[in-house]
Amino acid sequence: MRLKATVAYDGSAFVGWQKQPNGNSVQTEIEKAVSLINKEKTRVFGSGRTDAGVHGLGQVFHFDSPFEIQGKAWIKALNSMLPLTIRIVDVEPVDDSFHARYSAKTKTYEYRVNNGEYDLFKREYECYYPEKLDLGKIEEACQRFLGEHDFTSFNATKLEVIENQVRTIYRFDFEVIDNHIIFTICGSGFLKYMVRMMIATCLKCGTGKIKPEKITEMLEAKDKDVMQYNIEPNGLYLKKVNY
Amino acid sequence: MRLKATVAYDGSAFVGWQKQPNGNSVQTEIEKAVSLINKEKTRVFGSGRTDAGVHGLGQVFHFDSPFEIQGKAWIKALNSMLPLTIRIVDVEPVDDSFHARYSAKTKTYEYRVNNGEYDLFKREYECYYPEKLDLGKIEEACQRFLGEHDFTSFNATKLEVIENQVRTIYRFDFEVIDNHIIFTICGSGFLKYMVRMMIATCLKCGTGKIKPEKITEMLEAKDKDVMQYNIEPNGLYLKKVNY
Repeated sequence: MRLKATVAYDGSAFVGWQKQPNGNSVQTEIEKAVSLINKEKTRVFGSGRTDAGVHGLGQVFHFDSPFEIQGKAWIKALNSMLPLTIRIVDVEPVDDSFHARYSAKTKTYEYRVNNGEYDLFKREYECYYPEKLDLGKIEEACQRFLGEHDFTSFNATKLEVIENQVRTIYRFDFEVIDNHIIFTICGSGFLKYMVRMMIATCLKCGTGKIKPEKITEMLEAKDKDVMQYNIEPNGLYLKKVNY
Repeated sequence: MRLKATVAYDGSAFVGWQKQPNGNSVQTEIEKAVSLINKEKTRVFGSGRTDAGVHGLGQVFHFDSPFEIQGKAWIKALNSMLPLTIRIVDVEPVDDSFHARYSAKTKTYEYRVNNGEYDLFKREYECYYPEKLDLGKIEEACQRFLGEHDFTSFNATKLEVIENQVRTIYRFDFEVIDNHIIFTICGSGFLKYMVRMMIATCLKCGTGKIKPEKITEMLEAKDKDVMQYNIEPNGLYLKKVNY
């Protein structure tokens, strides 16, 4: 039977979601646990990668099992084997046609910016950005990204990789809580470093270093050389995968 | 001139305050930075040790410098050299008779217990304790510790070490915020694991496993074999040293 699982993880403890030749990945840990329960080597398929340092709140993966085990029993068994940096939030049976990556309709990310005092206990969980920010400009900047665009300029993957770089942004806004800016972004899909480059560009607009109109130019340029901004992974959370 | 410094640090990144043959200590990092500025090997004297995993919010240390440098300049210079897991909060000149350890009158610790849902992003910064707790019993338990007692039973140091084990507890209470219990404890001084063993015992009273009256018996026993309870360092913060 096929199972769909939702998982949260602390990205600061891993080299990222995806298996790597060196370093510990979230996928590796989960495959170890699932394989032990399945009593056979089992691959798990994530909705997509998250980079080193990026956190999971609602990452989704699927896997197959020869056993008829209830969702709740899966959650308990997996969590008892997984390190405390990874917690399975939900497991439910799905149709065999379900694929964590290809069935995904949209993804929602959150990015947490600390615009106040540095908090050493949260250095892995938020981005410290103490510059003075004009929130109106950030809002304008977010809106420039809404809708369907070719994100070639906001894709760190080399040009030789042939891929459709058109994506749709359905939502991109933020709320302010105690000197923290919490961005929410929902889109049809995201290219390499795309969320972080978008956030970095919006924050640069907030500082006044660039104007929001520049974003439309950058998008239209479809040129990887226009992008100069990126931001640390610490503040980024994959919040939800929508099917 | 002599300087008194206040420092915050993330205990999860260190083997503790004190220099150790293996592993990185807070003291080692600070001595490295101070020595570089002083242009000579300089020792720093803490108000006391904190164990591996225990955090600093207001740990205090003193050191001497041949230079006349302003407090604010010290803060800036030290923080530029220290890792982001250690932040100097304050530096001020003091009389040459000041000693971070021997001049201390009382110390205040905080202990954070998460009695709700496990939060994987806070596993190093709070103690996850999901058992059902009777807060009234915990309050009674805290009160049993108030005043002057011989804390032999609550001192993990071996008996052969001759030391006065009498300490006075001036304050021991807690507040509840969103399923979290935040203990505050202020005393004339604390022996090895003493705070953690006190908290662990109070929580055991909260679960109903032991009665608050038992605490008075344990104190009166002055016997290291009566203590069976300890609790992880993650939730413990040295909040303030009072002079």
